[in-house]
Amino acid sequence: MILTVTLNAALDVTYRVDRLRPRAGNRVRATAARAGGKGVNVARVLHALGHRTVVTGLAGGPTGAAVRRDLAAAGLTDELVPIAGESRRTVAVVDEEADDTTILLEGGPHVSAAEWTAFLDRYEQLVPHASVVVLSGSLPGGLPVDGYAELIRRARAHRVPAVLDADGEALRAALGEGPALVKPNADELAAASGSSDPYAGAEALRAAGARAVVASLGPDGMIAVTPHGSWRAAPPAALAGNPTGAGDAAVAALAAGLVAQTPWPVRLTEAVALSAAAVAAPLAGDFDPALHRRLLPQVTVEPLRTREGESPCR
Amino acid sequence: MILTVTLNAALDVTYRVDRLRPRAGNRVRATAARAGGKGVNVARVLHALGHRTVVTGLAGGPTGAAVRRDLAAAGLTDELVPIAGESRRTVAVVDEEADDTTILLEGGPHVSAAEWTAFLDRYEQLVPHASVVVLSGSLPGGLPVDGYAELIRRARAHRVPAVLDADGEALRAALGEGPALVKPNADELAAASGSSDPYAGAEALRAAGARAVVASLGPDGMIAVTPHGSWRAAPPAALAGNPTGAGDAAVAALAAGLVAQTPWPVRLTEAVALSAAAVAAPLAGDFDPALHRRLLPQVTVEPLRTREGESPCR
Repeated sequence: MILTVTLNAALDVTYRVDRLRPRAGNRVRATAARAGGKGVNVARVLHALGHRTVVTGLAGGPTGAAVRRDLAAAGLTDELVPIAGESRRTVAVVDEEADDTTILLEGGPHVSAAEWTAFLDRYEQLVPHASVVVLSGSLPGGLPVDGYAELIRRARAHRVPAVLDADGEALRAALGEGPALVKPNADELAAASGSSDPYAGAEALRAAGARAVVASLGPDGMIAVTPHGSWRAAPPAALAGNPTGAGDAAVAALAAGLVAQTPWPVRLTEAVALSAAAVAAPLAGDFDPALHRRLLPQVTVEPLRTREGESPCR
Repeated sequence: MILTVTLNAALDVTYRVDRLRPRAGNRVRATAARAGGKGVNVARVLHALGHRTVVTGLAGGPTGAAVRRDLAAAGLTDELVPIAGESRRTVAVVDEEADDTTILLEGGPHVSAAEWTAFLDRYEQLVPHASVVVLSGSLPGGLPVDGYAELIRRARAHRVPAVLDADGEALRAALGEGPALVKPNADELAAASGSSDPYAGAEALRAAGARAVVASLGPDGMIAVTPHGSWRAAPPAALAGNPTGAGDAAVAALAAGLVAQTPWPVRLTEAVALSAAAVAAPLAGDFDPALHRRLLPQVTVEPLRTREGESPCR
């Protein structure tokens, strides 16, 4: 099974309004809520692709209970560890007239040292059964900044590879433990590496310990810098839609490829097609399966050829 | 005791953001939540003024449970009747830089006929102990449009006067049952009466059955049209702040005045001062007690003198 870790699980709420009027009262026409957080989105995509997945992480309070009810409804195996604090909500306000979305992101709960220890115990029970662990998203307050480093170290002790989708200090502090793959977006990569060139940035993260780096570049696709070579993969055209969850779909594809040990160009093709098919779906964690199938043969993958001292990226 | 009825109780959530950026992700710096709905706000003000109050109405789901926990924390007597549906939330997004607020209002749950009957049973138990009942706010889905009419009829059977703060069809359908007081704002009064002149509108609601009408006119104060005469009351100056809850504070003062049978000019003075002191408080249901005391001697009340066929309002 694939173990996804969501330490800051969320209830993703969607409000539809006719027109979002700032500085006024806005009647919400329709409300939807479902379990979220990047790791949950990854699990949802993997589950839809037919992979056995287990969701762990931290959830608490009435909002955490709503997250867990929704995981059960979606048929996802729930191994979340309870905490005393209230899990966060995200609120996406969809302006139907303007066809755009404004997102409000709560900060999330504070986690105690005892709760973190309880999580590590659960993680130790789950990791030996995993073919890969996926660590996604922000760390809630109270967790050590090297929390992901600790989880990668423990996975490695069981010879289980780890995929990390995090940013900032949580990402930097984890590189030294040798994650099998990190997947920053362009901004996160630049922040973590100090380089605005994605290839140079990816090489810097590899030098710091990551075995492979896949950087998502939005509509431009992805670049991968790996022990087996470097590639750029791109969709046939930029797709309009909801970019939230596109990165999570890419992570799902890359984790599945890691399990199957498919060649990198195949993994990247899957990641780009699934990511684009996720952009076309209104909710994070969903993707358009017909579009996914249609896009697969249209994704282009080309090796990045580097000349001495020169980046293959613009 | 004063019985307040909130059929569409809410959890009022406040999100503070540095700057609300539409079409983007916004990190919420601070989150606060408390029990709301107009009737709950009225109860909170009455409680702060030292009146024994009981909160009834309908609440359900995890959000309803959060409402009830907060009522307990505030020391308000909770006689809410449980429903299967989930109580609504309101989300007030405070833009700290611009110092303004955008509000999102969920529609609320659907109430079954059996739940409405269960509420009527509870109401019948409570009403005989009430000196006045206050009926505030919107009717959730599933309730009969003449729900407030039914509640006023039942209160009258126990010789308990009813104060109604509702609008639209819920207000119009209730007038024939003879509420002791209705308190529309200028827009609600115009919509219910078909007249843009507040005095003529108030007379029309009286003709339809309301014994007294107090219309809140925002910073201009209020007018009252009653069996004992008509008055205009105004604060010394318009106050900046949060107008949400100002109407509820006015209703609290008017209900308290009804219980004490104070002369109308005194009731209106209280209502205007309390309303203005509520505008100065950041949360609905709160008021600034020092400002309330300071404003009381500054409120002006003057009789509305009508000449034959002429409105005393501009």
